[in-house]
Amino acid sequence: MSVQGTIAEKNAAYASSFTQGGLPLPPSKHLTIVTCMDARIEPAGQLGIDLGEAHIIRNAGGSAKEALRSVVISQRLLGTREIALFHHTDCGMLTFTTEQLKGIVKESAPGDAAVATEVDKLDFLEFPDIEESVKDDVKFLQDHPLVLEETKITGWTYDVHTGKITQVA
Amino acid sequence: MSVQGTIAEKNAAYASSFTQGGLPLPPSKHLTIVTCMDARIEPAGQLGIDLGEAHIIRNAGGSAKEALRSVVISQRLLGTREIALFHHTDCGMLTFTTEQLKGIVKESAPGDAAVATEVDKLDFLEFPDIEESVKDDVKFLQDHPLVLEETKITGWTYDVHTGKITQVA
Repeated sequence: MSVQGTIAEKNAAYASSFTQGGLPLPPSKHLTIVTCMDARIEPAGQLGIDLGEAHIIRNAGGSAKEALRSVVISQRLLGTREIALFHHTDCGMLTFTTEQLKGIVKESAPGDAAVATEVDKLDFLEFPDIEESVKDDVKFLQDHPLVLEETKITGWTYDVHTGKITQVA
Repeated sequence: MSVQGTIAEKNAAYASSFTQGGLPLPPSKHLTIVTCMDARIEPAGQLGIDLGEAHIIRNAGGSAKEALRSVVISQRLLGTREIALFHHTDCGMLTFTTEQLKGIVKESAPGDAAVATEVDKLDFLEFPDIEESVKDDVKFLQDHPLVLEETKITGWTYDVHTGKITQVA
């Protein structure tokens, strides 16, 4: 069965016993999580977050910079006042540089001007060290004029081999 | 107890029975999910996705445009070849315009030039209709020079009141 078919079938089972249809839009814990898209990350289970409690922003690496638009919406329109940011061990962002990835993309489509133009617009936001990148991202949020001053911001690493989190900022 | 303390305590319980530390970095189902940060969304349970199977990108609204950097990394470095994009009912993105939110932010810090400058850099990527926005985002990905041509791309809505997904693209 295709992934598409699997998703539809598994969702039908989920919906048949769904009982949480009355939850409000604003997160009940006033919390925003920022973390990586990595397939081994599952914030609800790993952090004990129940449905309706927190916004969860995920992108390659768990970049605070890319999360900014969502953080502003989360705080200004939906009342969140705490941010917990996670990067994790064995992250793909540790394995390449933006220049290398631009090279891979351009080599895949030689002479394609649209591909070259579009990829040159991107910064892939990679990092060489997860603790440092967590600290940098926490500082980015703390210092940013659009993030509310009263926000409690913490930074953590998640170990994909042990399932453990460690606070580093 | 603070949210921070709660997360640490709940993670300790999770880690104490964690048995999936050997999963590889590339997603086993070669699948990328794009969906909203909304607190009522929980892709693993709602779509039946197990740890290690899929990249999950989440931002305010489930914007494909903002997800592009992550999609390129997901496809070019980690081998995903299918994208399922979800927007959902009762989404915060239906409730405001970028101009309104810029106004709210500026009014919160009258005369603060840094706040005005930074917020004017942002497009909040709101939308007035979730089916149309799913179709637009699927088309954006299908037409984008950096998204691999062989990618299977589908678009869905999720109903936060019933727990059901519906394919719309």
